[in-house]
Amino acid sequence: MRVGLDVGGTKTDAVAVTPAGEIAARVRLPTGWGPDAVVQTVLDAVALLSQEPGLAGATFSSIGVGIPGQVAPGATRVLHALNLGVDELDLAAAVAPALGAPVRVENDVKAAALGAYALRGTTGSMAYLNLGTGVAAGFVFDGELWRGARGTAGEVGHVSIDPRGPVCKCGQRGCIEAFAGGAAVAERWGRPGALPVRDVFDAADAGDADARVLRDGLARGVASAVRVLVLAADVDVVVLGGGLTALGDRLLGDVRTALAASASDSTFLRSLRLDDRIELLPAGSPAAALGAALVGASHDPLEALAHG
Amino acid sequence: MRVGLDVGGTKTDAVAVTPAGEIAARVRLPTGWGPDAVVQTVLDAVALLSQEPGLAGATFSSIGVGIPGQVAPGATRVLHALNLGVDELDLAAAVAPALGAPVRVENDVKAAALGAYALRGTTGSMAYLNLGTGVAAGFVFDGELWRGARGTAGEVGHVSIDPRGPVCKCGQRGCIEAFAGGAAVAERWGRPGALPVRDVFDAADAGDADARVLRDGLARGVASAVRVLVLAADVDVVVLGGGLTALGDRLLGDVRTALAASASDSTFLRSLRLDDRIELLPAGSPAAALGAALVGASHDPLEALAHG
Repeated sequence: MRVGLDVGGTKTDAVAVTPAGEIAARVRLPTGWGPDAVVQTVLDAVALLSQEPGLAGATFSSIGVGIPGQVAPGATRVLHALNLGVDELDLAAAVAPALGAPVRVENDVKAAALGAYALRGTTGSMAYLNLGTGVAAGFVFDGELWRGARGTAGEVGHVSIDPRGPVCKCGQRGCIEAFAGGAAVAERWGRPGALPVRDVFDAADAGDADARVLRDGLARGVASAVRVLVLAADVDVVVLGGGLTALGDRLLGDVRTALAASASDSTFLRSLRLDDRIELLPAGSPAAALGAALVGASHDPLEALAHG
Repeated sequence: MRVGLDVGGTKTDAVAVTPAGEIAARVRLPTGWGPDAVVQTVLDAVALLSQEPGLAGATFSSIGVGIPGQVAPGATRVLHALNLGVDELDLAAAVAPALGAPVRVENDVKAAALGAYALRGTTGSMAYLNLGTGVAAGFVFDGELWRGARGTAGEVGHVSIDPRGPVCKCGQRGCIEAFAGGAAVAERWGRPGALPVRDVFDAADAGDADARVLRDGLARGVASAVRVLVLAADVDVVVLGGGLTALGDRLLGDVRTALAASASDSTFLRSLRLDDRIELLPAGSPAAALGAALVGASHDPLEALAHG
């Protein structure tokens, strides 16, 4: 049995996966803040899993952890996981002795890409576009995660699509993330609320002009990201996931409208049939935790690093 | 001995390549217009090569042809090679009987990418950004050409970077190609001349305001293409080639200035060290013909289609 964990900014999702790739158990728990608490969260998640009905006596052959930060070469250390209060942490070294199994760490978006690919159960090429606090993508080609030369493939959030657009936290103007990142939208909205992007959609529906600008910009940013992913990498499909996709068809409908508008102006874009290539990851999908389990099960870390 | 041909809009470049990958002979000849003349050009090029000193009695084991058009699955037929007056042509079927060797066809930009990679003689990942009539790129990862799901990977010329930018022939507004494609620049310049983009650079140097706008836009378009290629695919290096690179350091200097300007605003972009990742293909490089020879030498067409 393999274990996969998706350590998110507020909660951690953990699954136990059979050798056949089926999810045998799943638990969720709050994520602690800071390096020590993150280590404890990982240990608690594995302990909770082992107490699940049906897993009595099961042994875990590998642990994979998806985490919102940069993963250093070697797949044990995480850097700059700012949403977890972690600047640098050798997570594998910290938890492996207590867990008695090899531990590998992966960037959460890349883990989710691998999990989404496995859940789709098809072959070919896929981009997973994560719409959360920020905007980033992961690529899976023929079943293998593809990281690029320095592990930053898929950073389409920082492609600028408008020289007069809003300033991005990265310092550029008009980045896709400045239009479509949850944090950027919330900051520009500027009103208190637990779910600011949902508030923006509600206010736009009610006719608020500022909200309409933000909502249109969000759709435009996501549509641009889809175009960049397909034009640059010619993936079969772009799967949309992440916190913002809780808006479901309200978001997807806007994105389809934005894609249709660009296709109506361009025979070339129309020929790419972008509208047919986008899919929404179902709400509550275990893609990220499942993908982490698949990363954790890679036998040779160096081989896995080289090929994805 | 393998043969590679780069069939361009005005001239055809042909090389004979030894099993060790060395160029043993090279000839150039004008390209004919229309399907029959293109077929004759290919036959003439191979005949000329066989008359080169040192190739007496040599046999050609494979022929690869790079051509500016879409290549249909199967790597024998070319579609929409508009600059050659060819709408659809089974080039391999037309020339193979007379040549007595297997013939494969490849899009010219993808062939040039493979050739540029071979000429660099290093490992890792590379994008080849072709700056010619249009703007398109090819990717080589670990020595293999990467085409994407439908053979259109690298079409970064049609990423829009400015919603208020010039209308592209594809129908969108503000495409990279509308700023940096040779045809688009020539059309916006609108004055007669054999080398319109060089004229634009000369006029800009002389203080012409219209020319300065076009020249700045060209650098901005190329810099954007480099950013898209590195952000999306995280390639080690972007090699610039194509007709516009005859401008050499005049073009490269502008592109470096545009990249430096965006990096000065953004710590994130600065960390990507884009300026260190760009290179100019030397003028007169046989990259495209050499790459075509490498494509032609692929033993299993289906395997070659699947992997590169």
